[in-house]
Amino acid sequence: MVAIDSDAHVASPDPDDPVFALHQGGKMEVAATVPLRDAHDLSLSYTPGVARVCEAIAADPELAHQYTWVSNTVAVVTDGTAVLGLGDIGPSAAMPVMEGKAVLFKQFGGVDAVPVALATTDVDEIVETVARLAPTFGGINLEDISSPRCFEIERRLVERLDIPVFHDDQHGTAVVTLAALINAARLTDRDLQDLKVVISGAGAAGVAICAILRSAGVRKISVVDRSGVLVPGRAGMNEVKDMLADQCAPWARPGSIDDALEGADVFIGVSGGTVAEESVARMAPDAIVFAMANPNPEVHPEVAARHARVVATGRSDFPNQINNVLVFPGIFRGALDVRATEISESMKLAAATAIADLVGDDLSETYVIPSPFDPRVAPVVARAVTDTARRDGLARRPY
Amino acid sequence: MVAIDSDAHVASPDPDDPVFALHQGGKMEVAATVPLRDAHDLSLSYTPGVARVCEAIAADPELAHQYTWVSNTVAVVTDGTAVLGLGDIGPSAAMPVMEGKAVLFKQFGGVDAVPVALATTDVDEIVETVARLAPTFGGINLEDISSPRCFEIERRLVERLDIPVFHDDQHGTAVVTLAALINAARLTDRDLQDLKVVISGAGAAGVAICAILRSAGVRKISVVDRSGVLVPGRAGMNEVKDMLADQCAPWARPGSIDDALEGADVFIGVSGGTVAEESVARMAPDAIVFAMANPNPEVHPEVAARHARVVATGRSDFPNQINNVLVFPGIFRGALDVRATEISESMKLAAATAIADLVGDDLSETYVIPSPFDPRVAPVVARAVTDTARRDGLARRPY
Repeated sequence: MVAIDSDAHVASPDPDDPVFALHQGGKMEVAATVPLRDAHDLSLSYTPGVARVCEAIAADPELAHQYTWVSNTVAVVTDGTAVLGLGDIGPSAAMPVMEGKAVLFKQFGGVDAVPVALATTDVDEIVETVARLAPTFGGINLEDISSPRCFEIERRLVERLDIPVFHDDQHGTAVVTLAALINAARLTDRDLQDLKVVISGAGAAGVAICAILRSAGVRKISVVDRSGVLVPGRAGMNEVKDMLADQCAPWARPGSIDDALEGADVFIGVSGGTVAEESVARMAPDAIVFAMANPNPEVHPEVAARHARVVATGRSDFPNQINNVLVFPGIFRGALDVRATEISESMKLAAATAIADLVGDDLSETYVIPSPFDPRVAPVVARAVTDTARRDGLARRPY
Repeated sequence: MVAIDSDAHVASPDPDDPVFALHQGGKMEVAATVPLRDAHDLSLSYTPGVARVCEAIAADPELAHQYTWVSNTVAVVTDGTAVLGLGDIGPSAAMPVMEGKAVLFKQFGGVDAVPVALATTDVDEIVETVARLAPTFGGINLEDISSPRCFEIERRLVERLDIPVFHDDQHGTAVVTLAALINAARLTDRDLQDLKVVISGAGAAGVAICAILRSAGVRKISVVDRSGVLVPGRAGMNEVKDMLADQCAPWARPGSIDDALEGADVFIGVSGGTVAEESVARMAPDAIVFAMANPNPEVHPEVAARHARVVATGRSDFPNQINNVLVFPGIFRGALDVRATEISESMKLAAATAIADLVGDDLSETYVIPSPFDPRVAPVVARAVTDTARRDGLARRPY
C-alpha cells in the first residue's frame, strides 16, 4: 500500500525539499515575441510606430484581438479563500498555485495566463475589480474562491462580460469527472441514466458535478455533506444545499453517507471527508469509486479496489488520475481561438465526451481517463469547444 | 532636413506597414521557468508539492517574495486616457503601448511586466482596483493616465501601498530630462542653480520636471501653457497650475512663451505646442533646447540647432534622444532588488546623476545623454537606486 501521510505538510521551508528549490524566484516569466536589437526595432514595437496600431484599435476595437496579446491571454483570478485543501490562506499564499496553473495553461494549451491574486474577499469588490480588468484579457479563469461566494461571483461576471468566465474548481472538475464516468459506465456496460450516484461534497466541485451529470442524463443523484444526504427541510441547509436537494428530489432519501452508498453504483468524493471500507463493500456490483480529495482521498484507492471495479483519484501516483489539467487548457484554447462569448454547458459536455472518447479501445479498469500528459487531450478538447461554439452561435471568429 | 510629417498617422491597418505585421498576435508571452515533462515535475510545480510552498507563505508572507514571481513583477497600469500624443483612446487601444513597455522592462531591466488596461477612468475606482491587485505584483508602473487625475492616483497609491508606485510619464521623463540637463550644463560650463529654464507644458511631465529640477537646485523656472507663463492669479489656472505658479514665484513673470524664452538658457518642451525659430534665436548664448514632444518636436531640431548649442528631442532619428527607457527599467530593477518601499525623490536624483555620469569624457553637443541601447545604463541606474534605498532606510532586503 502506498502511504498517504496526512501530516506530511510542513509550514516552513525545508532546505532539502526540492519543491522549495524549484519555487525559488517563482515559476514563470514574461518574454518578448518581437526583436528589440536597435533603434529601428524600437521604432516599430514602441514609439513612434506603435501609435499607428493604437489609432487603428481606437478606430476599430476588434483589432485589439489581432494586434495585442489580449486574445491569447487569460487571468487566473483568486482571492485565496479556498486554496487546494488548505482553505483560506490569503492571496499571497495562493500565488504558487496560480503560477502553477499559468504554467499548465501555457504548456498544455499555449495560453498565456497571468496570476491575479486579489486583496479582497468581498463579492462586490471582486466582481467590480475583475470587470475593470476585462480589457486586458481574453478570458477569466476563477480559481480557489470559496463556496458559496464563487457561484455569485461567476454568475455576475458571466452576465456582465462578453469574454469567457470559467470557475475551474467547478467546471474543470465537473468536465473531467463526467469524462471518467462516461468511460467507467461504458466499461461496466451501464447507461448514465441508470446510474445511482452519490456525490460527497456540496461545495464548488459538488455543485458543478451534480449539474453536469444532470445535463448528461444522470437522474439518480444523492449529494451528501458532513451531516448526510441533502434533502429539503433537513437541518444545516443553505441556499446552495437547498438547490442541490431540489435537483436531487425525489430520488435522494434522508440518511447518512453510508445509507446513501448502500447499493449505489458510483461514489464521487470531492469533500475531504472519509468513507469507510464497509460502505464501499455495500455498494452495487461493479461499483465505481472516484475518491478525488487531495492529497488524501476519501478512501484509500487500494482499499476501495478490494470492493469496487473502477477506482480513480485526484493523485498522480495511482491509476485513473482525474485532473482538471485535462480540461482547462483545451477549454480556453478553443474558446480563445473562436473568441467565444462564453463557455456554455454544451461546450463542457462536448469537452467531456471528447476526453472520454480518446481512451477508445484501451479502456480498462485502470484506464478510464487519459493521462494529464497525453498530448492529444488539449487539441481534442479545444476542437470540441470550437465546434460547439460555432454550432451554437457563440463564436465571434471563424476558426 | 529630416521630414517630420504630422499627417503620417493612419487609422486603419496598412497591409504593407511593417508595424502591423510585427504586432500580429501581440508582442509578448508568458513562459515557464520550470520544467513540466512528467508527473514528477507536475507533483513539484503543482499538486501536491505546491501546497507546501503555499503553507510556508501563509505562515510567513515574506516568503512570497522568495518563492513566487511577485518580487520580479511590475504591473503597467493604464486607463487609456493619455496615450502617447493620442489622448483618450481607451484601454484596448492603449494595450500596444503597455505591451511595448513590458517588452522594454524585460529587455533592459530583466523585470517581468504585465499590462493592465482598466475599463474605468474614475480616480476612486482606479485606486481601489490597483490596491486590490497589489498582492500580485512587486511594483506598480502607472502609464498614460491623464493629468491632473494622474497626480491624485499616484499620491493615494503611494500612501496606501508598501510597494513602489511610479508614474513613468512624470518621473521617468523628469529623471532623464535632468540627466540630459546636468550634462548640457557641464558642457556649457554653467551651474544648475544659475540656469534660466522655461518648461512648456503643465501636464504630468511638466509638473514632474519642475519638481525634480527644483530638487536638483534649479531656481529660475518659468512654466508655460498655451496661454503663457503660469503666474498666480492668471486666467485659466487650476489647482495644479496654481501649485506650479507658486513654485516658480517670484522668478516667473507674466507673459507669452516668447517673452519667457527671451534670454532663457534652457527650453524644455513637453507640450506638443510649437516654438518659433525667432524665439529660439532670442535665447541666451549657448542655449539648451530639449524639444521633446513626440512625434513632432516643438521646434524642428535642425532649426533649433541654428541658434542653440545643445539640442535634444524625444526621437530616435536625431542626436540626444531623451527617452524614459533610460530610466524605468533600471529604477524598477533597483527597487525590486532591495524590495524598496517606494521610489523616493532621492532615488530619482541619484538615477539622473548616474545616467549623466555615464557620458563622461565623451560629452559633446550631440552626446549629452546615453543611447537607449547603451547596456551600461540600466545596471548603473539600478545600483544608484539600491544604494540610495539602503542609505535612506527604504530597502527591505539587503542587496
